[in-house]
Amino acid sequence: MNQFTSVNDVKDISQLVNDALTLKQNPYSQEHLGKHKTIGLVFLNPSLRTRLSTQKAAINLGMSVMVMNMDKEGWALETADGVVMNGSTVEHIREAAAVMGQYCDILGLRSFPKLQDRDEDYNEDFFNKFISYCGVPVVSLESATRHPLQSLADLVTIQETWKGEGRPKVVLAWAPHVKALPQAVPNSFSEWMCRAQQDGLVDFTVVQPAGYELSEDFTPGATISHDLDAALEGADYIYVKNWSSFADYGKILPFPEGWMLTGDKLKGTNNARVMHCLPVRRDLELSSEVLDGPNSLVIQEAGNRLWAAQAVLKGLLENLS
Amino acid sequence: MNQFTSVNDVKDISQLVNDALTLKQNPYSQEHLGKHKTIGLVFLNPSLRTRLSTQKAAINLGMSVMVMNMDKEGWALETADGVVMNGSTVEHIREAAAVMGQYCDILGLRSFPKLQDRDEDYNEDFFNKFISYCGVPVVSLESATRHPLQSLADLVTIQETWKGEGRPKVVLAWAPHVKALPQAVPNSFSEWMCRAQQDGLVDFTVVQPAGYELSEDFTPGATISHDLDAALEGADYIYVKNWSSFADYGKILPFPEGWMLTGDKLKGTNNARVMHCLPVRRDLELSSEVLDGPNSLVIQEAGNRLWAAQAVLKGLLENLS
Amino acid sequence: MNQFTSVNDVKDISQLVNDALTLKQNPYSQEHLGKHKTIGLVFLNPSLRTRLSTQKAAINLGMSVMVMNMDKEGWALETADGVVMNGSTVEHIREAAAVMGQYCDILGLRSFPKLQDRDEDYNEDFFNKFISYCGVPVVSLESATRHPLQSLADLVTIQETWKGEGRPKVVLAWAPHVKALPQAVPNSFSEWMCRAQQDGLVDFTVVQPAGYELSEDFTPGATISHDLDAALEGADYIYVKNWSSFADYGKILPFPEGWMLTGDKLKGTNNARVMHCLPVRRDLELSSEVLDGPNSLVIQEAGNRLWAAQAVLKGLLENLS
Repeated sequence: MNQFTSVNDVKDISQLVNDALTLKQNPYSQEHLGKHKTIGLVFLNPSLRTRLSTQKAAINLGMSVMVMNMDKEGWALETADGVVMNGSTVEHIREAAAVMGQYCDILGLRSFPKLQDRDEDYNEDFFNKFISYCGVPVVSLESATRHPLQSLADLVTIQETWKGEGRPKVVLAWAPHVKALPQAVPNSFSEWMCRAQQDGLVDFTVVQPAGYELSEDFTPGATISHDLDAALEGADYIYVKNWSSFADYGKILPFPEGWMLTGDKLKGTNNARVMHCLPVRRDLELSSEVLDGPNSLVIQEAGNRLWAAQAVLKGLLENLS
Repeated sequence: MNQFTSVNDVKDISQLVNDALTLKQNPYSQEHLGKHKTIGLVFLNPSLRTRLSTQKAAINLGMSVMVMNMDKEGWALETADGVVMNGSTVEHIREAAAVMGQYCDILGLRSFPKLQDRDEDYNEDFFNKFISYCGVPVVSLESATRHPLQSLADLVTIQETWKGEGRPKVVLAWAPHVKALPQAVPNSFSEWMCRAQQDGLVDFTVVQPAGYELSEDFTPGATISHDLDAALEGADYIYVKNWSSFADYGKILPFPEGWMLTGDKLKGTNNARVMHCLPVRRDLELSSEVLDGPNSLVIQEAGNRLWAAQAVLKGLLENLS
Repeated sequence: MNQFTSVNDVKDISQLVNDALTLKQNPYSQEHLGKHKTIGLVFLNPSLRTRLSTQKAAINLGMSVMVMNMDKEGWALETADGVVMNGSTVEHIREAAAVMGQYCDILGLRSFPKLQDRDEDYNEDFFNKFISYCGVPVVSLESATRHPLQSLADLVTIQETWKGEGRPKVVLAWAPHVKALPQAVPNSFSEWMCRAQQDGLVDFTVVQPAGYELSEDFTPGATISHDLDAALEGADYIYVKNWSSFADYGKILPFPEGWMLTGDKLKGTNNARVMHCLPVRRDLELSSEVLDGPNSLVIQEAGNRLWAAQAVLKGLLENLS
């Protein structure tokens, strides 16, 4: 693996999940790999889980970590070429990325979408330029359209907990929110589950209100539904998440009542385990009853962010040396 | 020790002081204890001394350190249960604390009081919830009502410097300020000195203008005075500190002239050593003449923050393994 | 070396350059030097290159690093003596510096000029007080009037790349900008090049529009010019940089057209290599054509920040032990 920005960078997802679960059993077994290696974690947006889990993963592998928060004013980077930089951008991504690559063996990058211009966001212009100019392997800490470390942790959690026969039924269920959120987490979860479905690991359904359909590029082979109760029938895992509209880009559209996941909604499922990437708005996306009940996997899932990150960094380090 | 949030978590304060002074002589003697252990330092408010001294203490013990500044906008945590989270809080403390506990062996937490609602602050609701949800040992980096790492450093400094016969007379003396400050430092100092008095280590007096009396919960056995000159008579140590009113909660009340500690005020003392937790407002709380003179212990006291923190982390690490 | 704040702290600049280039070949050869040593990096202003390169340099030497960002509100330090601190400054530099010195073996400090009062900035009052109160060796991460780690990296880059006969001709060329920038980088570069000229390593010219002349204290022995094309004739290295006026202190004065460095301007040179400390405003200070072309050294120069910092820290560590 020479970069980790989407499931497409991974040859064998089952092997990567196994790596994560093996590291969970023995966190320091690969500590030699990171000796004299430094990762720079560059945040253009705030981060809690991703920052701490990736930092800890690097520590477990014996790496040094440098964190760079560029989410403050005064760090506005120019990405366009051929522009006279006499405005508010203080440095071009060509230089900024190349310089960070001079001091680090691996770079992690977080950059959210602006949710203004769909093409701009979905082109992943910022991320692609950063990768091409920095000159070292890049791991995505969430880009405009994907959050692959989260999705790997999600798959790890499903594989770790599934004790049933055959393939579990996994449902990605849209939920309400008060803010317009990116599609990065659901896009990425869907992309990983579609691959897992191809590999015979899961059956995958996406359910959302009309107008909230994810881009078809991220849902190949998924069952698409608009009926929450029908979709949840027989579900083994429900992945609850809000996102803003892809069609009416970045907008919050009107939606019918009844999209919050409650204890009642679990009744038609196969005693489904409930997942969420966090942070979660209690009693808006998910009822407290479910979050605090025995079906919730959210803390275990957050804990697995560490082992997902560690498996990815292990892969990148092995490729370096 | 399985947590450190007040003097009540400490069985034997003399032993803890000895540990700190022993570590000061030989800072790296316990470096094996922290191998493969990580502390997360979570700041909901700014920190200089506490952050650097605790980070260095952890480094001396061989630990890894992750610092999380959550004092910026966008990190507002919900603490109330049963609330529909459709407002400005982005995550519930139940999830936030539990997640941080997944990545760290020990957590340090700083959270100041709001000084609006006395019951809310003195219930230590935020701190107690964080502790109960995070699932790992917690060390207070200053809470709404206490700052025990500071108080331990203060006791270390007194024990380290006291060469006289019998018990030194220690006076906590209120001083003027322009801002309404929490009672955390004086509460905590008083609580530790009352314990030290019980253990036969000091004689302890609190002196403040009328209206500024600390909660009696923190002053059991202390001599309480409103007359600065009388209280300072024969003092061996003067701990200068401002705080806002407990009775008229969080307010700055009118007070008579003459509460700034000056060289003149030292005349009636037993050549008293002068302490302050810092930062100090020069020539408002304490005269420059005293701060820059031979009686001041403030820098040595700040230096001892390191050994206090290291003794506490040593105790928590020994309890982990 | 017991501090590093200007070229005057360095006995032999050629030896320091050699140290940097030797470390570049073998980054971990001196890892034992930093064992049980901690550097605190204190930033009163934002930093990308300086922070990451110095942090990495310290890591390569086996040191621990603590970063303290004091560029946020609420950290305003008082520097004047004899002031009643009843205003907005929360701590005096006497205490703040002394306390940081308690926890660190070496301190790095960044503090920009205010560009309001020339005497205040050029006195380096803040820096000098910090040094005198902190009690440990200090390395400048850029002060009001100098940026010596940058200048050392610049000299390293010239020495590393110069393959010609005799002394290279080095030209410091003023360039346009939209903001009023400090003179720290050009002052410092000039000061180092004047020393290098004395040592027979370079021939040094400064060229700028009328009104932008640097203080003569920083240009002893340099050729001073106001004609860009004439100055560039036969140049081997061009160091492009904007600065605000020293005479009309901190102001942006009117200047004639033609001061941006373009491909055309390179024609009269000896195929000059082009340098800039970054961040650079593309197509305002320097044309994209030059920046992205074969004559640009800017990324290599930024990379050398690491080895310059490591050579300096090595010198300070050797002096400690």
